[in-house]
Amino acid sequence: MTTIRVLASELAAHAGENVTVAGWLHRKRQLKSITFLVVRDRTGLAQAVLCGDEAAAACVADLPEETVISIAGRATANPRAPGGAEVTEPLVTRLSEPAEPPPFDLYRPTVTAGLPTVLDHAPATLRHPALRAGFEISAASVAGFRATLDANGFTEVQTPKIVRAATESGANVFAIDYFGQPAYLAQSPQFYKQAMVGVFERVYETGPVFRAEPHDTARHLAQYASLDAEFGFITDERDVMDMLREVIAGMVAAVLARARDATERLKLTLPEVPARIPELHFADAQRLIAAEAGRDPRGEPDLSPADERWLCEWVLREHGGEFLFVTGYPMAKRPFYTHPDPDRPTYSRSFDLLFRGMELVTGGQRLHNHGDYLAALAARGEDPGPYAGYLQVFSHGMPPHGGFAIGLERWTARLTGASNIREVTLFPRDLHRLAP
Amino acid sequence: MTTIRVLASELAAHAGENVTVAGWLHRKRQLKSITFLVVRDRTGLAQAVLCGDEAAAACVADLPEETVISIAGRATANPRAPGGAEVTEPLVTRLSEPAEPPPFDLYRPTVTAGLPTVLDHAPATLRHPALRAGFEISAASVAGFRATLDANGFTEVQTPKIVRAATESGANVFAIDYFGQPAYLAQSPQFYKQAMVGVFERVYETGPVFRAEPHDTARHLAQYASLDAEFGFITDERDVMDMLREVIAGMVAAVLARARDATERLKLTLPEVPARIPELHFADAQRLIAAEAGRDPRGEPDLSPADERWLCEWVLREHGGEFLFVTGYPMAKRPFYTHPDPDRPTYSRSFDLLFRGMELVTGGQRLHNHGDYLAALAARGEDPGPYAGYLQVFSHGMPPHGGFAIGLERWTARLTGASNIREVTLFPRDLHRLAP
Repeated sequence: MTTIRVLASELAAHAGENVTVAGWLHRKRQLKSITFLVVRDRTGLAQAVLCGDEAAAACVADLPEETVISIAGRATANPRAPGGAEVTEPLVTRLSEPAEPPPFDLYRPTVTAGLPTVLDHAPATLRHPALRAGFEISAASVAGFRATLDANGFTEVQTPKIVRAATESGANVFAIDYFGQPAYLAQSPQFYKQAMVGVFERVYETGPVFRAEPHDTARHLAQYASLDAEFGFITDERDVMDMLREVIAGMVAAVLARARDATERLKLTLPEVPARIPELHFADAQRLIAAEAGRDPRGEPDLSPADERWLCEWVLREHGGEFLFVTGYPMAKRPFYTHPDPDRPTYSRSFDLLFRGMELVTGGQRLHNHGDYLAALAARGEDPGPYAGYLQVFSHGMPPHGGFAIGLERWTARLTGASNIREVTLFPRDLHRLAP
Repeated sequence: MTTIRVLASELAAHAGENVTVAGWLHRKRQLKSITFLVVRDRTGLAQAVLCGDEAAAACVADLPEETVISIAGRATANPRAPGGAEVTEPLVTRLSEPAEPPPFDLYRPTVTAGLPTVLDHAPATLRHPALRAGFEISAASVAGFRATLDANGFTEVQTPKIVRAATESGANVFAIDYFGQPAYLAQSPQFYKQAMVGVFERVYETGPVFRAEPHDTARHLAQYASLDAEFGFITDERDVMDMLREVIAGMVAAVLARARDATERLKLTLPEVPARIPELHFADAQRLIAAEAGRDPRGEPDLSPADERWLCEWVLREHGGEFLFVTGYPMAKRPFYTHPDPDRPTYSRSFDLLFRGMELVTGGQRLHNHGDYLAALAARGEDPGPYAGYLQVFSHGMPPHGGFAIGLERWTARLTGASNIREVTLFPRDLHRLAP
């Protein structure tokens, strides 16, 4: 049988034709005189109906679920079949060895295994349509990130992941033996993306970053995908916030356009990204919490997880939205390259975007003058020596610039409601997990 | 002056209007009674003309080249100005500290520094329009890779870069201290992309891979960007070659669409990708070389660089094309997961795509049955133990599949004619280079 392969989602459109469907045997149901084979491909499920003779000819008994098969036959409309059509008069061909059973039944709507089992057997378990959905949403989100920035004149860059000095602090870095020299895995492309503003004005990178997180939490990984953007010729951090808003809107739009089926499988409600995301200055946020939340965080240099949750509830209540910009974080808790607020220099021109209970994105304006970098390092008592390569960037003329970084897995977890970031990471790396 | 910023490429379209251009002072020419300031932004060059008083008011003497400035004034048509318009009655504002001079004059059409100087001072030197062009072409190529595969139903994945065992061989890996356990940087996403064929059928990844290359050559790097694709339900390696041809055509089309200006700056002739790329079986290629090249490579298990060069000259001469598929490489020189040719089992279902004198892409069909993997490892005397996680994939039902990997920097070097791959790598990593 040499008919062209038809995808499950296309089967109904071919009703009345000879077709071949191919995929994994998702479910086998053998009744007395009839057998149903449900095949799963990248677009969904397709059903074939076999009478007793056909089932015997197909050696159905030797086909455990997850075996890869192709089924040639006639596409026949049937409103009760998945997708509205099924394959009749089927001729079944086995394309793989008989499969070992996965650790739980992939055809059941609900995942009946715990997270460690899911992760240990990821190549099999991620085939479950509900587990797979998160990754379809993740891929669509990255596409939306890139499309929005492409449309705004950004250039994609590829920066080194092996660096001589730790990017932002000496803590939480992975050491590597680099041809006998000490080196580290990059914690972020921060320094390189800033340098590339001097070349391309507007740059982004979607790549892995590495943090030797010594804590075993539901929201930290040793490797995650960072969606980084940086651009020049801004007036202040508001230009960065405007660009971020557009990017987030583009990511949600891309999920709707490219992964709608996945959102429906998970019964998700995607957030609306308003034309203007509400904002609160850090000091006002603390004042608000002090006035209304029954505790007083004022004096703290950062928001606590409880503060972030409270503010997200507040913005939903007061503005009916799920996003909130908190601006003006204290300089004391921001990296040395952060631009201060000239009017209130203990506060910064940086912001966090809160979403569904936690910080999703950090961004802001950076320093751009060489002298300001030297002063900032001196004020923190840091030796400028290890930063020589980075500082060189600012002695060659850099425009006012800023940017942001979105943690892809954290974003996807917020969208899907995953309680552990590992559920939306293909092969997570953490304190305990180095395989598969 | 609060007019909206106009990009250099847009200036002529705004002739007669008040505008602001902003960028790096690319060139300053002070004549007796008139001064020209040429500003470089991400789209090109824009010129401003200042009379003596205006130059004094702008403190032109304090503006070294590369200082970031904005110029508000009147866009005035002038056919002799770059882009056909210039800014008159200019008001100059300095946006950065005065810049230090770059290691060579960026305004000269030709790069007058050697590669070590270019690389040591990359944040400044890559601003040169000719050096920057390669990276615009590189970014466009990646976009074309993704767009072609997106259109073919592929899903983008993010795989781990820290692995417990070396991917393909124990050699040339970077060791890393992973929370006290030994681990390695991934040499390729090969195992993970195959595993994900079981989940998504068709996957790609654009990410860094790491090779501890002990050789100091013009074509090897310790980190490079690998454009990886893998997909299932193929008949044989010809389906992979067809997809690769489409991807390469998509990459060339994207360069034309998104980086045409860069190709013109470098005066490049982009290759034509024929509807069908000529093919030679490995054995026939050796026979041809033996008959026509004055030497006999038969018996060698691989093509030498000289063989590849000769074959590229041959395909240009005989077919008028720059691409050649060499198919059926001997199994002896291919990785253990390579699918043999069932009719001639010492040859494989793998191929190389040669382009402009060298191998550009390697790909092929992989084994897909668990038993075949065990037999392949046994035949090579390899212990299956370290591959347990990988082998698990094939016991859960895997379709016939294959894929390919394109080295981005190598591709870009071939397109631009760069003699050293480092010229088209933002911050190369090699035996001697760990900074900037």
